Amino acid sequence: MSDDKHGFDVPMENPLKVAMVLFPGMTLLDHAGPEAALSFHAKLHLVWETIAPITTDSGTVVMPNMTFDACPDDLDILFVPGGMGTADAMANPRLIAFLERAGATAGYVTSVCSGSIILGMAGLMRGYKATTHWSSLDMLEMVGAQAVEARVVVDRNRVSGGGVTAGIDFGLTLLALLRGEDAARLTQLAMEYDPQPPFLAGSPKGAGERLTGIAFDIVRPTNDRMRDIARRYGTAEALRAA
Amino acid sequence: MSDDKHGFDVPMENPLKVAMVLFPGMTLLDHAGPEAALSFHAKLHLVWETIAPITTDSGTVVMPNMTFDACPDDLDILFVPGGMGTADAMANPRLIAFLERAGATAGYVTSVCSGSIILGMAGLMRGYKATTHWSSLDMLEMVGAQAVEARVVVDRNRVSGGGVTAGIDFGLTLLALLRGEDAARLTQLAMEYDPQPPFLAGSPKGAGERLTGIAFDIVRPTNDRMRDIARRYGTAEALRAA
Repeated sequence: MSDDKHGFDVPMENPLKVAMVLFPGMTLLDHAGPEAALSFHAKLHLVWETIAPITTDSGTVVMPNMTFDACPDDLDILFVPGGMGTADAMANPRLIAFLERAGATAGYVTSVCSGSIILGMAGLMRGYKATTHWSSLDMLEMVGAQAVEARVVVDRNRVSGGGVTAGIDFGLTLLALLRGEDAARLTQLAMEYDPQPPFLAGSPKGAGERLTGIAFDIVRPTNDRMRDIARRYGTAEALRAA
Repeated sequence: MSDDKHGFDVPMENPLKVAMVLFPGMTLLDHAGPEAALSFHAKLHLVWETIAPITTDSGTVVMPNMTFDACPDDLDILFVPGGMGTADAMANPRLIAFLERAGATAGYVTSVCSGSIILGMAGLMRGYKATTHWSSLDMLEMVGAQAVEARVVVDRNRVSGGGVTAGIDFGLTLLALLRGEDAARLTQLAMEYDPQPPFLAGSPKGAGERLTGIAFDIVRPTNDRMRDIARRYGTAEALRAA
């Protein structure tokens, strides 16, 4: 790694070429999990329309380092996170056009949380099994994917993770596919990924009906907007095919 | 939450006042886990010497939003992450002075990964049980703490998490202490924290001797620098006490 990484000097041979999309209202943890899993083995392009600062949905501001236009086509991994800003991202024609282009040639087309629905709007999930946050699984079907309730779903070169924290499991799974299980195990040790959740509340089943209902109410306005946009998918695809 | 959070409109009554330190070479995931756990209930101050961009040890650049000088004293939580840049942070007199000041009045003094050793350099861990990344537990004793091998350690108003991904368990534990178990369970559901690690390699025991040896070799230069600086702790404390 480079000197500006403060002494973590692991020489990389043929680093993976990874484009990670950033967008306003994305969830920082959707990005940080996969990044932690992949960064020892990768050259990371953090891509958006411009390189202006991006405010994530928890408030932390992050900086893209590459525009869509400058992003190369020979990516090993194209990655899209989710977040409270997903509806706007789904309806952003510049993002969708970038995903169509980069997704056509990337080795792996990947996502965490509602990122898979954004990929779907670009026509990249049609006929593929995929997953997303538990609250938005129905939307995957609207963009032509086959929704699967699972932590990580691998279908040919599509790899998707569930909600937010699933990005860690996703990142290690993807690293194992690309660099082998030993590399993934070493990274898991470095990240001390030996989880001990304080509660059994990480899924609707574990959290129970009452808390799940509250959570659905909280995300309802966002999810309703996403569904409205997903309904346009068929039209968008027809337009693209025309 | 505010309108710029893209529709996630949870009104906060008496949001927690949280200062999260950012520093060059910090680990983004050390920050992103606790932030995801706390942000629905908090006003987050991201503090550093200046508000200039900060490069984390995986490459993503984040923006502080408050200087040390502007940070209020009546914090509910003071939080410090770790990362490959920890040695420089331990030796930074402006950071240490800020932690001494803010730590004296904060409701909870907290850390993830090697952040507890930085807190220790500010004299804030003397006589407290604490944890850190598995590779640097010995350094806690050098700054007067009692090292504990655990995912999360709570000792009076000190709360520390283990390495990197432990920040998620840490954040939910801290949220439960401050806002109750129901709030923590709801947040865990929103984060879909139902971990399914692909390997049993998240601890030295699980990863085995060979991989643990490789990991120690990788972090050795950084850890050696941290130990050199931790040895000055006694001197620094004597100087502060004088």
